[in-house]
Amino acid sequence: MAFDKLIEKIAILQNPTVVGLDPKLDYVPQYIKDKKFKKYGKNLKGAAKAILTFNKAIIDQICDIVPAIKPQAAYYEMYGFEGVKTLYKTIDYAKSKGMYVITDGKRNDIGATMQAYATAHLGFTDVDGVKIPAFGADALTVNGYLGTDGIAPLLELCQDNDKGIFVLVKTSNQSSGELQDLTLADTTVYGKMGQMCENWGSEYMGKYCYSAVGAVVGATYPEQLEEMRKATPHTFFLVPGYGAQGGGAEGVAKAFDENGLGAIVNNSRGIMCAYQKLNANERDFAICARRAVIDMKADITSVIPKIQLPQTEEENPTIL
Amino acid sequence: MAFDKLIEKIAILQNPTVVGLDPKLDYVPQYIKDKKFKKYGKNLKGAAKAILTFNKAIIDQICDIVPAIKPQAAYYEMYGFEGVKTLYKTIDYAKSKGMYVITDGKRNDIGATMQAYATAHLGFTDVDGVKIPAFGADALTVNGYLGTDGIAPLLELCQDNDKGIFVLVKTSNQSSGELQDLTLADTTVYGKMGQMCENWGSEYMGKYCYSAVGAVVGATYPEQLEEMRKATPHTFFLVPGYGAQGGGAEGVAKAFDENGLGAIVNNSRGIMCAYQKLNANERDFAICARRAVIDMKADITSVIPKIQLPQTEEENPTIL
Repeated sequence: MAFDKLIEKIAILQNPTVVGLDPKLDYVPQYIKDKKFKKYGKNLKGAAKAILTFNKAIIDQICDIVPAIKPQAAYYEMYGFEGVKTLYKTIDYAKSKGMYVITDGKRNDIGATMQAYATAHLGFTDVDGVKIPAFGADALTVNGYLGTDGIAPLLELCQDNDKGIFVLVKTSNQSSGELQDLTLADTTVYGKMGQMCENWGSEYMGKYCYSAVGAVVGATYPEQLEEMRKATPHTFFLVPGYGAQGGGAEGVAKAFDENGLGAIVNNSRGIMCAYQKLNANERDFAICARRAVIDMKADITSVIPKIQLPQTEEENPTIL
Repeated sequence: MAFDKLIEKIAILQNPTVVGLDPKLDYVPQYIKDKKFKKYGKNLKGAAKAILTFNKAIIDQICDIVPAIKPQAAYYEMYGFEGVKTLYKTIDYAKSKGMYVITDGKRNDIGATMQAYATAHLGFTDVDGVKIPAFGADALTVNGYLGTDGIAPLLELCQDNDKGIFVLVKTSNQSSGELQDLTLADTTVYGKMGQMCENWGSEYMGKYCYSAVGAVVGATYPEQLEEMRKATPHTFFLVPGYGAQGGGAEGVAKAFDENGLGAIVNNSRGIMCAYQKLNANERDFAICARRAVIDMKADITSVIPKIQLPQTEEENPTIL
């Protein structure tokens, strides 16, 4: 229910981090590209196949250390339907290795259309009575600008299929304040969005007191992270902006609760491109990614409370 | 430049409407589905092939009457990468018939990631020096919640490739006001988003005084449509919510300027499902769609000024 599955994976691995798989072709070692271009041609299919090989090798090296991956839909769409096929196969492979998959699509629409996105990414598509998972992720990032009509179609599906969503609240980018920081009668735009997340999630609570409605809150704004951790205690955070974007571990620590839970911190380029940063042989890209996730785990866990699952109501009925 | 190409198509056809291609499998006649399921199986491929056949037949029947189509990405993603291939082929087919294509994806992200979406939907993907259009639409709907970092990556690409974007401002759904109508210091959230559209577009102006940055403003809120038409005079509107969602022609008229320009009104189900509404033979679905677009054109043009291209600066230098 809700993010329970993710929270338990985090506790088992003692690691509240997620690796963003945002594979620009520039990040893929030349020897992989050469091989795929030779086989499929220098086209979208060749590119998509090279990216899949790259992703799988990274997944192999991180799946025993990191609980989750976060593929960013944009980098797959850039390679057309062949790229989108690689997104599907990446998700499928990560799940076969026991990883939790958050598709970062920031999808948004209303009613039946939002239902279609929910079905596509988290549910089962009905083809004349046959139910097929189109992409099969565990969670999806979404944008709440359209209000409840854009979120409600996801909630029942999350409940029925044990899935979760992360709504953009305070994003990590420099210009996020242009709209998100503006002052409303009694809060800010991002504060209001956070309240809405708490409300949307209130009937979809997991056993660790985090609901199926999470929030994206950037590592680059530690004050707002701290504010939102207090204001939205049942909302699990996906925290981008650590590493390449400038967010450090000390700031990120504000996203966590007293059990070292309540958030998962993303790093994309810092892991995928670790071999470039280290000037390592390109054939060592995956082992460099492994070293980078070990370093990241150490960095984050050094500044947060020891990760432990809180007693649930069932285990100790007196905690109510 | 900007929306000039779309505006000229609207003027030639005297028709400021766009057909939304949001093809749920339920909308596709059974005889098409039976044929494709028999050939490809009752799976995502079979479904995607059926939808493509449906779309092409509708495009054939409307391309001499309607200037544009608006495929909704969600309904293609619902059928996995096979569905996304149908999106690509639908766009390609509509363009081959001379139509303008607005991909309704409501995409949003920042920096390099938004650049990837821009490249995917409006640009050319670089595969080791070979430039390939991944989807090749003329315009894309986007969500501006992340501020300038989410829009800037699109602007140069629009300029270089003669493309446009539509930013969500005031959406047509019932709960759009939960966030969008909230009051800021001197405007509303949607009013602020409209101002941002004017600002983003100011350096990307077309010859008919509409910029490359359009806005989505729903037909279901005529007062706000009127307000935004005045407040954002250089912002071309994409108007959803006409027909099935309850917006009528009288309300929609507020979206237009004194030349009958400044907006394009969408209808999806009212066209795609015209044959179901008329209880017609399912084999007549495309001809029913043709009748429906003729009716829609008559309905909208009856309440707006006669469509005429304004004199441009080049034609009459004194109008400055």
